[in-house]
Amino acid sequence: MGYLISFEGGEGSGKSTILKQLAEYLIQQGYSVVCTREPGGIEIAEQIRNVILDKKNVNMDAKTEALLYAAARRQHLVEKIIPELEKGTIVLCDRYIDSSLTYQGYARGLGIEEVYTINQFAIGDFFPDLTLYLDVSPTIGLSRIQKDGEREVNRLDLESLEFHSKVREGYLKLLKQFPERIKAINAENEIEVVLEEVINIVLPFLKDKS
Amino acid sequence: MGYLISFEGGEGSGKSTILKQLAEYLIQQGYSVVCTREPGGIEIAEQIRNVILDKKNVNMDAKTEALLYAAARRQHLVEKIIPELEKGTIVLCDRYIDSSLTYQGYARGLGIEEVYTINQFAIGDFFPDLTLYLDVSPTIGLSRIQKDGEREVNRLDLESLEFHSKVREGYLKLLKQFPERIKAINAENEIEVVLEEVINIVLPFLKDKS
Repeated sequence: MGYLISFEGGEGSGKSTILKQLAEYLIQQGYSVVCTREPGGIEIAEQIRNVILDKKNVNMDAKTEALLYAAARRQHLVEKIIPELEKGTIVLCDRYIDSSLTYQGYARGLGIEEVYTINQFAIGDFFPDLTLYLDVSPTIGLSRIQKDGEREVNRLDLESLEFHSKVREGYLKLLKQFPERIKAINAENEIEVVLEEVINIVLPFLKDKS
Repeated sequence: MGYLISFEGGEGSGKSTILKQLAEYLIQQGYSVVCTREPGGIEIAEQIRNVILDKKNVNMDAKTEALLYAAARRQHLVEKIIPELEKGTIVLCDRYIDSSLTYQGYARGLGIEEVYTINQFAIGDFFPDLTLYLDVSPTIGLSRIQKDGEREVNRLDLESLEFHSKVREGYLKLLKQFPERIKAINAENEIEVVLEEVINIVLPFLKDKS
């Protein structure tokens, strides 16, 4: 069996970039690696995602949404992640169960425990073997995104600052709850420094397992 | 608050007919009644249902399906059932949580407890106040359906006989687990007899509550 390594973090944490660079590094080291993110091109998961994102669906209840995310996660796991793990591949997944726990469970107020329960049903034994949490203060994270888009700070960004502070609080709670599985990395540093720190966690993990 | 009364039973149990006749009877008695069934014309629930029923989706995992049913149930509950209950209406619902418990939890083998957990997340405090289980042997139930469609027994019917025996077994387990909430009615009798028995359960229930 391979290993499932998930990447977590708020907006502007740089996790997607780091994930790609880690993948390149691991491939250079001779590992077999696949990068994915939900819904991952899985037709059923894409259809579920379309229901979640459909702009007409303004009445969608938060619990309906959480159940739909869990359903899409299940299908992506079964069709894409598990077959790769069975081939012995290292699967790097951009967001996984912890995103639901903090975004919906904590920041949206559904309860971490409750969202954990439905996701436990969805993923069964396929918890991540290792989770890399890229920690960045929401102010810095959002300012990085704004630089990307070259736009001014608006009312929604200010609202989202509060929301993203809750998201970070949620991640910090999860870190305490799962200290063995989740490793935090200071993502306010330069990207080279972050990548080095990530590699310094992942390589010993892989060597320890093999 | 009104009352949520769910109707359960295997194929050919006659529950949809009985539900309608009970509604007419209760309306004659002066009660305010609404009949529904999932997805109940709720746009989001219809979209979810379309994903479940899409013939392309042959790869759909049983857990994905169970999560999607729970999501559609949640949305139907929030948009349709709860507003009616708040008006004091008696809501008669054709299939509800127990269908998932027996069809997916028991007959499809996901586990009654596990499917219960995600449905508990979905419906919260909105368990049915009363559940009428119309019990019929699968042989009689399926033969009723075949008479309706005027078609011969085929291989699929034989397969489904085994499946529907499991569905019935599941219902009988639920009956033992929730003896206060679920009441069984022998639905092999003539429809007038079944309706009378149903009324003899529902009227005392409503008088007891009021």
